[in-house]
Order: sequence, then structure tokens, then C-alpha cells
Amino acid sequence: MGETRRGPASGGPAEANPVQRSGWRVATLGAPRMTAPNDPWAPLAAQLRADSIRATTAAGSGHPTSCLSAADLMAVLLAGHLRVDWRHPGSAGDDRLVFSKGHAAPLLYAMLKAAGALSDEELLSLRKQGSRLEGHPTPRAPFVEVATGSLGQGLPAAVGLALGARLLGRELRCWVLLGDSEMAEGSVYEALELGGHYRLSRLVAIVDMNRLGQRGPTMLQWDGERYAERARAFGWRPIVIDGHDRAAIDRAYAEAEGSDRPVCIVARTKKGAGVSFLEDREGWHGKPLSRDDAVRALAELGNPRGDLVAETPAAGSAPPRTPRRRPFEPPRYEVGAKVATREAFGDALRALGDAREDVVALDGEVGNSTYSERFAKAHPERFFEMYIAEQQLVSAAVGLQVQGLVPFAATFAAFFTRAYDQVRMAAVSRARLCLVGSHAGVSIGEDGPSQMALEDLAMMRAVAGSTVLYPSCATTAVDLIHRMADLRGIAYLRVTREKTPVLYGPDERFPVGGSKLVRRSNGDVAAVLAAGITLHEALRAHDLLAASGIRVRVVDLYSVKPIDAATVEACARECGGRLVVVEDHWPEGGIADAVGEVFAGRPAPAIARLAVRELPGSGTPRELLDAAGIGADAIVEAVRRSLG
Amino acid sequence: MGETRRGPASGGPAEANPVQRSGWRVATLGAPRMTAPNDPWAPLAAQLRADSIRATTAAGSGHPTSCLSAADLMAVLLAGHLRVDWRHPGSAGDDRLVFSKGHAAPLLYAMLKAAGALSDEELLSLRKQGSRLEGHPTPRAPFVEVATGSLGQGLPAAVGLALGARLLGRELRCWVLLGDSEMAEGSVYEALELGGHYRLSRLVAIVDMNRLGQRGPTMLQWDGERYAERARAFGWRPIVIDGHDRAAIDRAYAEAEGSDRPVCIVARTKKGAGVSFLEDREGWHGKPLSRDDAVRALAELGNPRGDLVAETPAAGSAPPRTPRRRPFEPPRYEVGAKVATREAFGDALRALGDAREDVVALDGEVGNSTYSERFAKAHPERFFEMYIAEQQLVSAAVGLQVQGLVPFAATFAAFFTRAYDQVRMAAVSRARLCLVGSHAGVSIGEDGPSQMALEDLAMMRAVAGSTVLYPSCATTAVDLIHRMADLRGIAYLRVTREKTPVLYGPDERFPVGGSKLVRRSNGDVAAVLAAGITLHEALRAHDLLAASGIRVRVVDLYSVKPIDAATVEACARECGGRLVVVEDHWPEGGIADAVGEVFAGRPAPAIARLAVRELPGSGTPRELLDAAGIGADAIVEAVRRSLG
Repeated sequence: MGETRRGPASGGPAEANPVQRSGWRVATLGAPRMTAPNDPWAPLAAQLRADSIRATTAAGSGHPTSCLSAADLMAVLLAGHLRVDWRHPGSAGDDRLVFSKGHAAPLLYAMLKAAGALSDEELLSLRKQGSRLEGHPTPRAPFVEVATGSLGQGLPAAVGLALGARLLGRELRCWVLLGDSEMAEGSVYEALELGGHYRLSRLVAIVDMNRLGQRGPTMLQWDGERYAERARAFGWRPIVIDGHDRAAIDRAYAEAEGSDRPVCIVARTKKGAGVSFLEDREGWHGKPLSRDDAVRALAELGNPRGDLVAETPAAGSAPPRTPRRRPFEPPRYEVGAKVATREAFGDALRALGDAREDVVALDGEVGNSTYSERFAKAHPERFFEMYIAEQQLVSAAVGLQVQGLVPFAATFAAFFTRAYDQVRMAAVSRARLCLVGSHAGVSIGEDGPSQMALEDLAMMRAVAGSTVLYPSCATTAVDLIHRMADLRGIAYLRVTREKTPVLYGPDERFPVGGSKLVRRSNGDVAAVLAAGITLHEALRAHDLLAASGIRVRVVDLYSVKPIDAATVEACARECGGRLVVVEDHWPEGGIADAVGEVFAGRPAPAIARLAVRELPGSGTPRELLDAAGIGADAIVEAVRRSLG
Repeated sequence: MGETRRGPASGGPAEANPVQRSGWRVATLGAPRMTAPNDPWAPLAAQLRADSIRATTAAGSGHPTSCLSAADLMAVLLAGHLRVDWRHPGSAGDDRLVFSKGHAAPLLYAMLKAAGALSDEELLSLRKQGSRLEGHPTPRAPFVEVATGSLGQGLPAAVGLALGARLLGRELRCWVLLGDSEMAEGSVYEALELGGHYRLSRLVAIVDMNRLGQRGPTMLQWDGERYAERARAFGWRPIVIDGHDRAAIDRAYAEAEGSDRPVCIVARTKKGAGVSFLEDREGWHGKPLSRDDAVRALAELGNPRGDLVAETPAAGSAPPRTPRRRPFEPPRYEVGAKVATREAFGDALRALGDAREDVVALDGEVGNSTYSERFAKAHPERFFEMYIAEQQLVSAAVGLQVQGLVPFAATFAAFFTRAYDQVRMAAVSRARLCLVGSHAGVSIGEDGPSQMALEDLAMMRAVAGSTVLYPSCATTAVDLIHRMADLRGIAYLRVTREKTPVLYGPDERFPVGGSKLVRRSNGDVAAVLAAGITLHEALRAHDLLAASGIRVRVVDLYSVKPIDAATVEACARECGGRLVVVEDHWPEGGIADAVGEVFAGRPAPAIARLAVRELPGSGTPRELLDAAGIGADAIVEAVRRSLG
């Protein structure tokens, strides 16, 4: 490992010293402490500490002591082990580093500065409006590909990164810095379990065991052997070290690089390490130093000049790879045939996998129910069984898309509630995810409410920039699956357990943001808006009403977000201002609310809302649809009521 | 252990035999197989198996093979170890049994029948509409207190049960039957971790290691030592046994009863055990037997008569306990003082704890941010630190309320997304929970989007029977906290990080479903509806508009669900049909949608919707409120726009 002093570029005067530039006085100037003959990392470690302090003091908020505990770990990593092309970070062959303890973001930014990827000026913009350097890392910052800050999500995402890299033959390594507090999160154990199961030998977890959480000691404090025992139990190689012994850190990383299984380095550290009045002290979590304290701290650190640019290891290389593409050959269904949309999803995903080599799939061990198994059978190398670990399912998808893959993750729609935090954070990561939830609504029948998704539309609509789709027939499902692969952001498709008749011919197209008028006449007195299973109820209601001379329009709102506002408005205009929305979902947050939002800022038509209002039990799909008041009879009654 | 044959009561003819009653022919009648001199449990085990098969075949759906693997485990438990007063199951001193593998519900119901708590006729109503015996257990069934079916939630709930029992001095034991597939769920490791941390020696996990998941083998298959190693790493005593060796099971339970720490029994079993054509076969998950197959299976089981009523161990007793209550002495704040609602929550919770001995609190290791630490300091024995394990936080609360306690669980509102499945299932459990989420919305400022709850109102509104509250000032928060303790179902309170001025005098009351008109005149041309931080923006907007002669009404919608429909309607009527809703939340599923729902089935007024529409970054609260378009200036503009 070596270091060069490259800056400041001007070779400029003392005023240009980055410590001073941020506004405080340097107490003394001198050689960095913490240097020893066998310790070439000391100056870099001191600078990372100093910059973490400077940035947070300048911001007036942040977590400097959580940075200081990990500074030695990161100095040694940056200088000797993290193989990144810092001129183009994020290249295919680059090692990855995920700060699972996202609140140590200033340390990450200090590393970027030391790698030459960030100026000192930008470092000091930390947490300011418009800065790329947010309080917790997001992809707005250079090098960052996975947003963190909700603890316990970095390692699970890195499992996906490592699975993707292996699939693509990229010999990169994924390093993850974890806090010890987040070792309480179950999601971390899902990652240990799957990382062990898939023997991801290029995945290295570094646990910054600084003993102190936000409000006091962690459960295990400095009991590194207990963490090691856990890692071992999940199939990882544990290495317990002193996290301030830089030579030991270096050896541990070298050992990790030679491991045939994933490695968990448990590093005993002190929160606030390197500054006497911060070290291992309670009450300092998430608090920046005052300017005076910062001056004292920097002096203790030897007042690093702050302009060190680390010489870092050569980046790995990966051959450029253009995934093969062939025309998509959609499965075709005859109009009137009874096919569950979940089954159509399985067929379409397999066909998409045939057409696109970059499409991968994951499932939460219910692939024979979601039908993702059809993809798995055709493309076993691109299918990742995540077992019953839904948080890991979503996080792995986040990691896979960082590698340029197009992941489809499927499970029962109800069980995506288990991963709502991961979905929310995926949006902060600007991830492109395709999520498919089956067994939506009361129409699943006998299994009862634990298996019924009745909140998934609300949940998925309330995600930044999301797309929410809900096909009513197999043909629609196929076309939407095909489109999802090219969408940005989080795309969610809700599919139904029950078989339903195919409504559209195989050449019909379903643009996102569109809808279909499936029944219309010039004399429509109301419009029934539905999607999925309830569209079929709406069609039955249409026929029942027609038999008594009442004409209603029926709209297939397969695109719940974005919704086809123009058609909804036209329905209101042309059908006497009477809309009836019927959905297999709670009344809150679903299709009816989406319809209501169309009329924001303007007087709205009457929107009758048929939805599930009481906790359902078991029963046949027919019984439960009727009991919930979302069957054809209830629609007929609602239309009649709307006519007054 | 002993058993008596009590039924059928009539001593009746062969036609009354319960096997026949359900409609199939018994192939042969004879003594049960599987009996041995040292195996008094055999007849009961055979009956549990037979009844599991009979019930699922009668239902035409369900998971008989998942019942059969655990039948020996449950027979020995019921007959020799589970201390329950079966005449009044759920009594204070009763042992608890949670079927974490909820899909084995028929086995549980078969146990209830064998305990005399259920008739054979009702057993055969499994999964039928109106039956108490749903496809997965819910509290509609006798003895069931925690709904399961979303895997990995039973053990976490039992951690809460055990914590509650210990607090109340109840010497009961909590037994939990887990499947091996659900050992993939991170929530299980949160439970192992907290169960170990709190050394819950009366908690016994029984892992039915039948090797086969839904669609194939589990990750660890029959590697019981690996499960044992994990349990040990989390501080549990593991016991690995053959789960069909009933004598060994009995010994393991006895050992568990003497343990000084929680026990994890890893039982090697075969899925479908006891029936040759089901045992350890893939492809049978979640499939009932045909009538013919059922007849064959029952014959193999020796055609148990089915009328066995087990003699069960005497129930434990617990002294009746009436929690002390004193009048609630609310903290009082002066109008105009600046107090964060999160701080008022802390003060109110402490005061509630002073007044009510049944109130307990939990936090996800952020008690110094949510201010639950004020309760913790005053009532340390009633405070449960759940560390950064939000799933366990909510599940523990579910368990605590089963013991009659009133749990308040607090963390950052954003991190309740981690436990949405647990909240959803808590509603299925008919649990009474008080959840408090702090740091809502962009107004938290510099920490950035990972810490900002912008979907919590959508998420919590879309929960069966939930209550969603959002105070704008400390006085409101105090009164709402006081009321939450007496609400049914899931109650959620959203609080704000920033200090805001106290708006109401200490004697003001805030009934659930109400609202406050904080500004009104006879000449109001629009109504601004807000809650929490945005109410204060609305008040500023009111003054800005008043300065230019425009009068607007300002409504504090502190009760988001149920919403004060009458006031919303009156506002529309009296303010020119112009409503402006402003919320620190995504546009989907929040306050504006709640306002829109008021007008279901009727033409609605113009509802302008100010909400957060772009992913925020870091910044000051002021900057971020303005950037999101939910600050006073944006409200002024929206009102002007609405006036055309």
C-alpha cells in the first residue's frame, strides 16, 4: 500500500488547507500521530477521521462517532483491497462496497475524497439541500448504488450483488460495512443464511462492533465470539479482530480474499475511536462536534493536512457483455379460455427469459403457486430461490439490478408486506424492480385472511415513482409483464389465484397508463371501474343490468398507477357523473382512491366504492366475493342505488 | 399420561362413528397401530393424524401432510405437558401454544377436539364459510389467541407472551410449533435473539424439521445440528430428537421444563408421517387427500375410532390480578410553547404508566428519539427494549396484549414499514395495539429519505379496523395517547420530529373521529385541511391570505381514520366547495384520500392535494417543506388557484 500527496492542485498557500477552508482554526500542525513503521495506513485513517468530523460539524448534524469506529477498517480497505476504477466508479469489474450502516455516510464520503472521486468542497456540502451527499448514502452520490439508512438492508442487497456478479462471470468482491446494532435485524440473518446457502465466497461482511447503539449498549456489546458463532452457524467463515489494529485488518482482508465461503469479519472497535473525549462514550450517537470540540479532535488526530489521495489497488476488469436479445414470443390464449393471471405470469416470464438474457427471477419458495417455476425450469441458472425470506427476496433483486440485470421477484402479494421497508428503500436506491404478487384479495378463498393481500395496492401505490398494474386476464398479464422489464422504478403486478376467462385477443396491447372499455354504449347511465377478479364481476353485473334495460359502461383499469385519467374523466362525463369502483382490497388506498385522485382540484363525480370492509374468514371464492359486497349482485345494487 | 374414551355420548351405533359421519367408508376397524408398552401416546397420535386427514378431505383443501409430521410432537405435548384449563382455555395461568406453522391448523383443531374443546362436527366444518375453524388459525377458534399463517410470526409473538407472563408473575409456559421452512424468516432470528437476551426460560420452540417446504426441500433439510448451532448461537438450549419417537419427545419436553434458558427442540420428522404413500414425498404440500386416499390412509392408521378425549395435565393457576389504576394526570403545556409532539408522547406515556399499571412500552432502540425513554425511566420493569428489530417489536406487542397488557410500541414511523406484515397479521389476531411512529415526513430534514415516513398513513389506514391519529400539537398528542389505551384494534399515532407551537389549552379534548376548526369566519372562501406539521403551515398561510383579504378556514384533522366526515362536509358546503388538503406524505393513501372517501357515492367538492411528489433529499425542514410544495407559500398559491 502506498499513498501520494497530490493536492492541493495549486500547491497553494496555507489558507487553502482544507481543514481551514471549512472555517475553523487548526490548533497545531504536525506529523500525523498513529504512524508506525508497519502501519502505512495511519495517515489515511487520520484523514478519514478528520474529514468525517469536519463534514458533520460543518453540516451541524450527523454521526461522527459512528464514522470514527470504522475509520481504520475503511482506510485499510480503500488503500489495499477495494479494487475500483475511481475514474469511473461502478464499472462492471469493480469491487462493490455497501455501507449497510448508512449513518456512517460521512466516512464513505471521506473515502471518496481520498480516492479522488470527490472534492473537499463537496465533502463539506454534506446534508445541505441540493448536495449529492445526503445524510445517508443514496445513488445521487458517486460510487453509491444502493441506498442505506434503514438498517440491516446493505448485506441483503450485497447478496444480490454477489449472485449477479457470479451469474455474469464478474470476479469482483462485495464488501459490506455493518454496524453491530443492525445485527439485531432479522434481515441480516436472512442474508447470512442465503449468502451461506449459495456459498458466496466473494462476499465479505465487516461488522464494526463498537458496542454502543443509539441509546446505549448493544445486546452483545463486545462479545465478538457470539457474533462469530452466529456467522459460523449460517455457513460463513468468521474472523474476529481488533478493528483498530490496521495490520490485523489487512491480514483479515487478505484471508477473506482467499476464502472459499463468505467471510464475516467481526471487528472490535470503539465508537469515537481516535479522539479521547469521544472514545467509547455514551451520549454521543448522532451528534456532531461543536467547532471548538472539532478543533480539539483534529489536533488529537495530528491535524491531518486533508489532501491525501490514496493510491488504491488496480480495478478488476470484466469483459463488456451485451445480453442476447431475441424477439419476445408471447404465450397466446384463446378468448374465453379460463386461465389464472398468475399462470399467465409464469408463461410470460418464461417467454421473456427466452427473449432476454438479462432477465432473472426470484421467488419466496412459492414458485409452484406463483408459477415462477415455469421460468425456473427453462432458465435454472437465472432463477434464484430465496426460500421463505421475503425481505431477502426484495433486497436480492435490488442487488441484481445494480449488476444490470432485470429481476422479477414473486411471492404471494400478502407477503410483500414483509418487505415493505425494502421496497420503500429500493425506491430511494432508484432501483428498477419488477415485483409480482399473487393470491390477491378475498377471492383466494379457503386459506383465509393471512394469505389474502388486501393492502398491496395501497402499499405499492405509496412508493415514490412506482407503477402498479393489475391484469384481469391472461392476455393482459402477458403484455404487462413484457412491458415491466423496460419500466423505470418499482413496478408491481398484482395477479389472481382463480382462473378467469381470457377477455382479449392475443394481439391486443396494454400500454402502462391505459385502460380498456370492455362494455360501452351510447346510453350508459353509469360506469363500473374494476380490475382483476372484480372486472369479471362487473361484466356479470353488466349483463344482469342489461337484462332489465340498464346500460352501464365497464372499464378495465389494468393500470392502477399511473391511471388512465382521460378515460376516467370521459366516463364521468358520458355516464351521468356516476362511477362505481369495485375492488378486492380494503377501501383505503386502492383503486377507488386512485380514481378519486384523477379529479384533484376539481369537483368530482359521485364515486361509489365497493371494497372489502370486514375482516374475511375462509369460504369459497364465490362466497367471499359476495360476502364482501364486491360480487356482481352488489355491483348491480350499487348501480341501481346510484340512479336514485 | 392417560386417556379415557368418553364418547360418543350416546354410546351409539356404528353410524355415529365420526370417521363415517364425514362420509367415507372405513376399510377395516381394529386396534390402533403404533402402540407399544412404553408408548401410551400412540392412540392419540393416530387420532390427531386421522382427524387432520378427515378435516382436510372434507374441506377439499388444506395441508394434511404438514399436520402429520407434527402429530407425534403435539400428541405428547397435549397429553403430558400442555397445562391448560380446557373448560376455559385462555385462563391467566394456562400454558400457551402458538402454531407458528399456521398451515397445520387442522392438527391444532384435532388437538382441541381431543381436549374436548371442539366437537367432531365442528372439526369437519374446517375452512367452510362461517366456521370458526379457518384455513389458518385465528382467534375466532377456541384457544387461539394469535393468528398465524404468515410464517415466522408465531415465535416472535410468543416472546411477547413470555415477557408478559413474567411481568405478571404467571408461571405458564409458552410452546411454539414451527415449521422448518419458516426458519428462513429473519423474524424467527429476531425472536431467538430477544428470547435469548431476555433468557425466557419458559419459552419452548419446537421445530418440525420435516425437510420439505412448499415446492421442494428446505435449505438445511434434515441437518438438525445446523439448526441447533443457530439456536445455541442465540442463547437457547437446543435439543435434537427424532420427532416420531414419542418417548424421546416426552423426555425432551421434560428437559425443556427444567431449563434455565429458552429451549429449541429440533425434531427430525417426515412430512406425511404415518401414511406410507405420503411419507417424505414431494408434491403433496397443501393438498388434501381424495376420499379414496383418505380411506386408505385411515386404514393404515388403524382406523382410530376418533372419539378419544385425552386426559391432559392440570392447568396452572395464576392469582387474579386487577391492575392498579389512578386518575391520569396529563402533562400540561402552555399555549404557544414549542414542544415536539414526539416529546409530548413521551410525557403522556409516562403519565399513562403512572395511572395504569397495565400499560407497557416497547421501543426499537430509538427511545431517546421517540421519547419512550421517559416511560422507561419511570417504569423500567414495564419497558421492553426490542433493539433494532422492528418485526419483533410489533410481534412482542401482540403477545403482551394477549396477556391483558396495553402495549405501546414506538419507533421511527418509517421503520414500521419493516413490520407491516406483523401489523396486518395483528389485525387478523384481533389484537389491541398502540403504535407510535416518530420522525414523519420530509420535515425531519437533514437525515434524508431513508428516515422519512412518507407512506405510513397509507399503510396504517389500509389495516382492518385501524385507527390513525396525527396530532398537531403537544396537547393533542397527550389526549390522544390517553384515548389510545382504550381503543380496540390497531391504533397508530404519527408524531413529528420538529418542535411546533402548542395550539390548544390543556383542557381541550380530542375525541377519535373528531377535528378542530382552528380558524374560521363567515366569509371563508376555501378550507385548508391539514394535520401535524402541515397544520402549522396552514396557519401561516391563513395569515398570509388574510393580509390580502382572503379568508380561509383551517381544520386540524388530527383523526385521519376515522375522519370527521361531518366537518369535512360542512367545510365543503360553507367554503364554496373548495378544499385544500396539505400533508407531509406521498399523495397516495394519505389524508387527501381520506377526505375524498368522505364523499363516496356523491358528487364531491374540488379537493386540491398538496403532498410530497418527488423523492426528497437532505436539507433543513424549512427547505424541504417548501421544496415539496407543502409549505405555507404553496398553500397560499393553491388557495389562490382554487379561486380561479
